[in-house]
Amino acid sequence: MYLHEVQIRVRYADTDQMGYVYYGNYAAYYEVARVEAFRALGYAYKQLEADGIMMPVLELKTKYHQPARYDDLLTIKVSIPEYPRVRIRYEYEIFNESNELLNTGETTLVFISKETGKPTRIPAVMLDLLEPHY
Amino acid sequence: MYLHEVQIRVRYADTDQMGYVYYGNYAAYYEVARVEAFRALGYAYKQLEADGIMMPVLELKTKYHQPARYDDLLTIKVSIPEYPRVRIRYEYEIFNESNELLNTGETTLVFISKETGKPTRIPAVMLDLLEPHY
Amino acid sequence: MYLHEVQIRVRYADTDQMGYVYYGNYAAYYEVARVEAFRALGYAYKQLEADGIMMPVLELKTKYHQPARYDDLLTIKVSIPEYPRVRIRYEYEIFNESNELLNTGETTLVFISKETGKPTRIPAVMLDLLEPHY
Amino acid sequence: MYLHEVQIRVRYADTDQMGYVYYGNYAAYYEVARVEAFRALGYAYKQLEADGIMMPVLELKTKYHQPARYDDLLTIKVSIPEYPRVRIRYEYEIFNESNELLNTGETTLVFISKETGKPTRIPAVMLDLLEPHY
Repeated sequence: MYLHEVQIRVRYADTDQMGYVYYGNYAAYYEVARVEAFRALGYAYKQLEADGIMMPVLELKTKYHQPARYDDLLTIKVSIPEYPRVRIRYEYEIFNESNELLNTGETTLVFISKETGKPTRIPAVMLDLLEPHY
Repeated sequence: MYLHEVQIRVRYADTDQMGYVYYGNYAAYYEVARVEAFRALGYAYKQLEADGIMMPVLELKTKYHQPARYDDLLTIKVSIPEYPRVRIRYEYEIFNESNELLNTGETTLVFISKETGKPTRIPAVMLDLLEPHY
Repeated sequence: MYLHEVQIRVRYADTDQMGYVYYGNYAAYYEVARVEAFRALGYAYKQLEADGIMMPVLELKTKYHQPARYDDLLTIKVSIPEYPRVRIRYEYEIFNESNELLNTGETTLVFISKETGKPTRIPAVMLDLLEPHY
Repeated sequence: MYLHEVQIRVRYADTDQMGYVYYGNYAAYYEVARVEAFRALGYAYKQLEADGIMMPVLELKTKYHQPARYDDLLTIKVSIPEYPRVRIRYEYEIFNESNELLNTGETTLVFISKETGKPTRIPAVMLDLLEPHY
């Protein structure tokens, strides 16, 4: 299973008047985590779009265990639990500096051809980079 | 079951470079829907916080069936499927002007005392407003 | 001079932990105001992009006189002070329900051809719609 | 004059359907730059709020020279041109990896007592940290 860790500092822009990170902003944290996970393997998501493939999110699930707060330095553990076929599923765990689990989530993404707007296969280059981990 | 409908116009700010509404922005649409649902019953969420109670989100689930796009006038159908006790669950369906179902989701929220930071009961006023619908 | 008014309800997503609307979020309010200003004249910005022209912002200035707060129903007065030539300049004034002036700003936008990426003329249709007001 | 540099990676969430960073999102980049500028001096903005002082933005000016794009690794040069008295003014220059100047801006901030909601002095600790640079 492929695992990766990234760190994100909570911005003031991310907070709401409860003093929590607004619940909709975790989606962007997940995005950073999955992009950096592939960059660490040697593949930039930007390249995927340059090659004519987009990767929209099909499904998102999030559980808010404890609030993340302003200036927290979050650690996001992202994993790809199954070797992907048509879809690719990511799981996320977010911890604060005291190693408290704040948030867990998952997203499922698909591959769409920019030209046709229809589902397409996962690029071989991505599969090759993941394969040693499964 | 209590049902309500709101309309939201997609802003340029909401789009991403795919030309879709960014997947994290639906959470704010859901927020608008549930706040307007209670306003239509005669209760402003602002009043809840003025009374010392916050209502953070505990869980979010979203399915992205079709992309919402710039300037779409979205209709959000929001419902509270069960008469709430400790938690309150909302379901959402988002349609575009062609009545295509773009997005479905649900959120579960809890009631927290601002003073203690601990869970508290749903205010009686909210229960009273919902009761005729169950 | 062309003037238009729009109303925007402040979302929870727009607030920060000061309990103010985050200073970066006024830009989206300005965007809504200028888009609705042209829609009221009979022209949708969406049409502009469909016709191969984009309208990026060149300059933004904002003064924050008083904070906008959660659930405020804001009135934005938007104007186009000069009949536009190469650029188009908008001015904004934001008021709350007590008619207090919260925010003033201005933006200057240009017209860019999607094909060439270079500046292009204001479409004649936009000029024609504005002309009776100058 | 105090100068500091930070790097920010453009997120997908930051883009709009033009393929540019949405013009309202630079404000959050500026926020990160000024917070990190003080952290580098040994002072966390979080501490300021813990001490009962907030620092809202009074004025924002931005010029968009060239668009920042998805996945750009931006360098933000932030400076405090004058030794601050009642207000503090920051200037920003944003460059991409090819060292092209994309964006310039400035913000003016004030100090507000959380208790009274009224302007208050710059904390001595902040002035002391800045003094060697003027």
